Amino acid sequence: MTLTGAPADADTTRLLALLAGRADRHSLPGPCYTDSALHEVDLRLIWQRQWVFVGSVAEVPEPGDYVTVDLGSASVLVLRDDDGQVRAFRNVCRHRGARLVDGGSGSVGNIVCAYHRWTYGTDGRLLHAPQLPAGTDLACLGLRTVHLREVGGLLFVCLAADPPGDLDAVAAVVAPYLEPHAIGRTKVAAQIDLVEGGNWKLTMENNRECYHCDGHPELLGSFFPTWGLADDQVPDRLRADHDRYLLAEADLLRRCDLGRLPHTLAEDLVDRPVGFRIQREPLDGAGESFGPSGERLVRRLLGDLTDARLGRLSLHVQPNTWFHAQADHVVTFAVLPVAVDRTLVRTTWLVHEDAVEGVDYDVDALTAVWRATNEQDAEFVALTQAGVADPGYEPGPYSEAEDQVDAFVRWYTHRIEEEVTR
Amino acid sequence: MTLTGAPADADTTRLLALLAGRADRHSLPGPCYTDSALHEVDLRLIWQRQWVFVGSVAEVPEPGDYVTVDLGSASVLVLRDDDGQVRAFRNVCRHRGARLVDGGSGSVGNIVCAYHRWTYGTDGRLLHAPQLPAGTDLACLGLRTVHLREVGGLLFVCLAADPPGDLDAVAAVVAPYLEPHAIGRTKVAAQIDLVEGGNWKLTMENNRECYHCDGHPELLGSFFPTWGLADDQVPDRLRADHDRYLLAEADLLRRCDLGRLPHTLAEDLVDRPVGFRIQREPLDGAGESFGPSGERLVRRLLGDLTDARLGRLSLHVQPNTWFHAQADHVVTFAVLPVAVDRTLVRTTWLVHEDAVEGVDYDVDALTAVWRATNEQDAEFVALTQAGVADPGYEPGPYSEAEDQVDAFVRWYTHRIEEEVTR
Amino acid sequence: MTLTGAPADADTTRLLALLAGRADRHSLPGPCYTDSALHEVDLRLIWQRQWVFVGSVAEVPEPGDYVTVDLGSASVLVLRDDDGQVRAFRNVCRHRGARLVDGGSGSVGNIVCAYHRWTYGTDGRLLHAPQLPAGTDLACLGLRTVHLREVGGLLFVCLAADPPGDLDAVAAVVAPYLEPHAIGRTKVAAQIDLVEGGNWKLTMENNRECYHCDGHPELLGSFFPTWGLADDQVPDRLRADHDRYLLAEADLLRRCDLGRLPHTLAEDLVDRPVGFRIQREPLDGAGESFGPSGERLVRRLLGDLTDARLGRLSLHVQPNTWFHAQADHVVTFAVLPVAVDRTLVRTTWLVHEDAVEGVDYDVDALTAVWRATNEQDAEFVALTQAGVADPGYEPGPYSEAEDQVDAFVRWYTHRIEEEVTR
Repeated sequence: MTLTGAPADADTTRLLALLAGRADRHSLPGPCYTDSALHEVDLRLIWQRQWVFVGSVAEVPEPGDYVTVDLGSASVLVLRDDDGQVRAFRNVCRHRGARLVDGGSGSVGNIVCAYHRWTYGTDGRLLHAPQLPAGTDLACLGLRTVHLREVGGLLFVCLAADPPGDLDAVAAVVAPYLEPHAIGRTKVAAQIDLVEGGNWKLTMENNRECYHCDGHPELLGSFFPTWGLADDQVPDRLRADHDRYLLAEADLLRRCDLGRLPHTLAEDLVDRPVGFRIQREPLDGAGESFGPSGERLVRRLLGDLTDARLGRLSLHVQPNTWFHAQADHVVTFAVLPVAVDRTLVRTTWLVHEDAVEGVDYDVDALTAVWRATNEQDAEFVALTQAGVADPGYEPGPYSEAEDQVDAFVRWYTHRIEEEVTR
Repeated sequence: MTLTGAPADADTTRLLALLAGRADRHSLPGPCYTDSALHEVDLRLIWQRQWVFVGSVAEVPEPGDYVTVDLGSASVLVLRDDDGQVRAFRNVCRHRGARLVDGGSGSVGNIVCAYHRWTYGTDGRLLHAPQLPAGTDLACLGLRTVHLREVGGLLFVCLAADPPGDLDAVAAVVAPYLEPHAIGRTKVAAQIDLVEGGNWKLTMENNRECYHCDGHPELLGSFFPTWGLADDQVPDRLRADHDRYLLAEADLLRRCDLGRLPHTLAEDLVDRPVGFRIQREPLDGAGESFGPSGERLVRRLLGDLTDARLGRLSLHVQPNTWFHAQADHVVTFAVLPVAVDRTLVRTTWLVHEDAVEGVDYDVDALTAVWRATNEQDAEFVALTQAGVADPGYEPGPYSEAEDQVDAFVRWYTHRIEEEVTR
Repeated sequence: MTLTGAPADADTTRLLALLAGRADRHSLPGPCYTDSALHEVDLRLIWQRQWVFVGSVAEVPEPGDYVTVDLGSASVLVLRDDDGQVRAFRNVCRHRGARLVDGGSGSVGNIVCAYHRWTYGTDGRLLHAPQLPAGTDLACLGLRTVHLREVGGLLFVCLAADPPGDLDAVAAVVAPYLEPHAIGRTKVAAQIDLVEGGNWKLTMENNRECYHCDGHPELLGSFFPTWGLADDQVPDRLRADHDRYLLAEADLLRRCDLGRLPHTLAEDLVDRPVGFRIQREPLDGAGESFGPSGERLVRRLLGDLTDARLGRLSLHVQPNTWFHAQADHVVTFAVLPVAVDRTLVRTTWLVHEDAVEGVDYDVDALTAVWRATNEQDAEFVALTQAGVADPGYEPGPYSEAEDQVDAFVRWYTHRIEEEVTR
């Protein structure tokens, strides 16, 4: 059901009350994850007002190339214009509203509506619409534009007329970290869409802690299970892992200094609209990438890198994405709401544009760890969705390992509070 | 969800505001097509109050023959009584409410509820219901009747206690046009139900213009793409088609005069409850019927017709039907709402009752054009449903070729406005 | 959608008005069966406040054995503790709410949440949860308990903090009837879950009358179609059946007296929260069990019984269950709401724990009658759901054969009225 007419003040008020009533460092009340009307508030105040990650420049390498991304019922058409610029438009015909591009990705000369053949250029201008009444100004009937920004090869859109202003500041911080991975010179090696059976916030919360990493045996070949823990939070059972982590970190920092790669933690997760966290962190085992024991998975390294052992550049941007950039490949994750209890996770593996499939990399091997890990996370999210929908659910306390889950929830709360009055 | 208790005034008020705010000659606001509560208003004010086409007498040729038709959750049982009259009833047992006939069509002696064997005659009277308390008056427990009218062999029902009064006047106009096709002496050659993924109004709007006819290559073998255009609206690219149209029209009028067939346009689409349009129009190519190049598809002509080249008698009746009657066969279309975003299109091909399948006609050939055309229209409707559900949708302007789309929308607006106060 | 924030007073008020407006001995208004918001009221005032049958001790014979039962979105974990006690818990982790046991039944040592490995004992205590902040009291984070009571081997739970107090009184009445069947010494021979396409109240109403028993040809081999009728209500067409019933009843009472088995009708269906009815009644034909002509289906009799011809101990407990206990086996039925228009019927066949499959009984033969009967009832319920959702539905009068349907509806009305003020 579409919200219409009067603004849904009662629902927003209800959400604000639930958020205000959350106990410190406890999970959100059930309706935040299960109530359809509150999901509509999320769509309006988060998904239609914040900067949202939609993909990378590697997905639209040539003029006319496009991808579509659905934020709830709002479809965004991201395409590279003939002038080489990447642009974003509402994926809706200006005539009687037909969906212009029916999902997926591809390449077009012009954008032609299948229904009545209204034809738009890749710059969104209406080029052709027969039999319009005399005096109709075609210039007023171009596709509705959507704000789009590129940050180090990553593409963010904002559906609001007045996007949050702090993306530039965040871009200035994170772009130097991303630069050595040269995403602009990558290609898509694989992309997998997985629909998780839970609310989008459960998907994000799941990603913000490694407290559940025992459930990811494949990932633990390369990923340190102490992720997210301060030194004094590491439990005894992970002490040996942490000792290896400290050694690996020392080696990584040395290499970063040699290669002049930025690596220190920069984090502002709660207070700003574009909440983010970036850090270069070591990987376990070979320390190179997500191979079974941390080995690289692509022979050709990204950009002009020569050192394969650069661990993992970890970038997280709220509301909807995280990335892992290694010396050999980048994995991007876009979290997109489908319904109050269904969320699309689009995972994309990027490799050097000159890497050759079957020679430099094998797609199955490249994607193995995150395919398995995503499936496991989807199961955790579905179990949690079922439980928080139960009237027997009560919000519970976060452990010390869940600081960033708490940060996400506080960020979400601040955004809702701010957007109500914006 | 069923609407109950207090009348849904807030929803109706919201719909009226949306309709009042529609820009002149622009498509309807998105919620009119996507909002479940507004769809309930449509069900109440349109589908439960207007005359609705449900089929033809050919579908219930013998006493006891019935068809069921669902208008949303309201099921209507149309059957021919033993006295030869076609009647309509609520398809609900008067005992504890079981559905009497579970969809489809067939033939019965009496109507027996499967649950407790309450038995009704084909006139709706309760004949048998065991163990009712002494003093129960069976005469008060007959099936609830539904108003039914036959117009030239076409059957219309109205669920309201007080149907709109103008069906008689419309019947007086259109019956003479229909009479030569003798629908009362036809039989059903084929019937296909297709569920389109869109609101019922999108299905109707789609039918009201040929602006999209480039998407119907099969249809264009016989159908003039200038349909709905005045002479001065014909664009250059269709000028040759229009010239052929004018020649064909002259020939058709000559034949009509010879055969004393009414043909002139009669139209009252906006202001009356039974909005309608009727006209005999030429077909392209052979000018006979919907063969690949306008050829006839049934050797045996309808009724007592001897001239096969009578083009297409086009009848449109709001809210839910259009017809094509040719010399050799009639095609009827019933549009029936399933949900806010799903609509059943029931297409029925009628041929002379003495025509022999495999001799006089081939079902595949007979149905080919409209099967293909319906599938194409279903795709257009689904694309539009997706788009108008997008918060990025804005109503757009109608072209000159969409006058009748505008007429339909104005009719719809008037009906809602009138029914609120009726 | 989960109900949240303010109590749904408007919906409850609406339901009360509908119930107050019900005509005497007429079926309920349509929205009581079809309106999602009213279903939420049912979940809150019936399913989350009344005693609900969930299974028998035979389903959890050993420590660690569990079954899960869903009352709407509320999942209950019923398991046998290491101390031999059967307990019930909310099936939700106290951490971030993950579903603990994902449906079905099985056996566990401890209850380990799949997500973050929080570990609970079979007594519900939180045994292990790593990295909780210093000072966290694990004792406050045990599983939320659910009231559970055993009555003659049958298990009832209540989600309310303050369950209705009259289960003890009912247990005192019915336990002596059940005792000879020794459910504590049975095992599960078969269990079948069937989802009916109707509201839970339709499923219960269907069970409360044999007015529809012509639709159960298999059942009528052993079941008297005069069930629920007083002597003076038996219609002529069932007179011969009733004569056989009277003879069989005389024989049964004689055997009961010999075996000191309680048999007289005890009934309090309307006025108390735990509405119930119990009676030992004869079966037709051989009079033993649900064989095709009333023969027994299990060679080994239950408990210490020696007489196979004990008819059927019929127990009915509102809101959600009925049982048939014969000398050779017990069949239990649990009715559980899935959605406003979907209801799970879980049927379980219990035989003596020492009975050997393939020797003492054949599962197909044992389950044949009730498998067929349940499928037939599911069809009746689905037809009724379709009909009561039709705006053409009007509540109709109950026959003399439907006294207990009326009693159920009055019980339901009283419960709603009482719970609103409780």
